[in-house]
Amino acid sequence: MILVRQEIGDVLRDFRLQKGRTLRQVASKASVALGYLSEVERGQKEASSEILASVADALDTPISVIMREVGDRLAVIEGLEPFPDTIPEEFVSNFDSTIMAR
Amino acid sequence: MILVRQEIGDVLRDFRLQKGRTLRQVASKASVALGYLSEVERGQKEASSEILASVADALDTPISVIMREVGDRLAVIEGLEPFPDTIPEEFVSNFDSTIMAR
Repeated sequence: MILVRQEIGDVLRDFRLQKGRTLRQVASKASVALGYLSEVERGQKEASSEILASVADALDTPISVIMREVGDRLAVIEGLEPFPDTIPEEFVSNFDSTIMAR
Repeated sequence: MILVRQEIGDVLRDFRLQKGRTLRQVASKASVALGYLSEVERGQKEASSEILASVADALDTPISVIMREVGDRLAVIEGLEPFPDTIPEEFVSNFDSTIMAR
């Protein structure tokens, strides 16, 4: 069974590390206990929506960015292609040669 | 404060209605209490990851599809552009005229 909290935890940890913050810094800014945040990051605790909002805020990251990353990672796990966030290279070159062939 | 459970509830209800299923049918297939599913759909209860997985399964919808829809709706609420899942019309026409102008 694919657990959303596991992906949420991984994404929160990855964003935190990307920003070079410690668990202590983020927990303190989000007003959550350090041990609790650590359990959330390890996918051991479900974060409430209020806590997710506080942690996202403490990471200076919109909650939509976090949830989209969660969705994309779940899609990879489920073997579904992630939606492209840029125009795929193949499309651009196909499109180009179609136009050029006119 | 933007609450993820509100969007999760809306998305679950919208997918259920899209598929023409009743609360009773989905609750029964997912083995959750009807009243509980109803509260989740109204954003009043946080669904655990296990319940989310069961409900997604009962809706024959990958959990990644649900979470991406949640992310996209949160992005609209936060005023961030949703990533396009098709090539935007403007891009196609701009691209076309740039190429044609060569």
